[in-house]
Amino acid sequence: MSVWNVKAIIMPKPGVNDPQGEAIRGGLESLEFSGVREVRAGKQISLTIEAQSRDDAASAVKRMCDQLLANPVIETYSVTVDSVEETDGGVNA
Amino acid sequence: MSVWNVKAIIMPKPGVNDPQGEAIRGGLESLEFSGVREVRAGKQISLTIEAQSRDDAASAVKRMCDQLLANPVIETYSVTVDSVEETDGGVNA
Repeated sequence: MSVWNVKAIIMPKPGVNDPQGEAIRGGLESLEFSGVREVRAGKQISLTIEAQSRDDAASAVKRMCDQLLANPVIETYSVTVDSVEETDGGVNA
Repeated sequence: MSVWNVKAIIMPKPGVNDPQGEAIRGGLESLEFSGVREVRAGKQISLTIEAQSRDDAASAVKRMCDQLLANPVIETYSVTVDSVEETDGGVNA
């Protein structure tokens, strides 16, 4: 069993209303940042999980996104597996 | 003036308490996901901005992070400039 760092990035779907992003855009305008055309606000969830393989880690986090982390009606997600942190046990001789 | 897609990823600093990440970890346990060691919850802000160059776009978004998007006491941020969407005007002959 290895330990993997996995990142899930969850963003509002294109076309879906994003009040948080609009509020940020308004705040940036108030601070006199010019040239900001669009702001979309989403989440990055960084997970450290145990899994047999890189593919197992990715598919576990995709299931987590479907069931808890993202709202598939209004959000899209992408999952990237970053690295192995350590390997426990004697799988590699 | 070109148009750039810039992503700012804002995460709680290591060691800083992250109640949202802890809540997600608890939720995943309730859903019987096993092997989740740590969860950290942060934000991804995706911006479409006008700037003269890639470096100008990155430095503008870093200033936005310092002034509005991130709380530098408890959060770190990273900025990546993704692509040029279009180029206006006749800068390139």
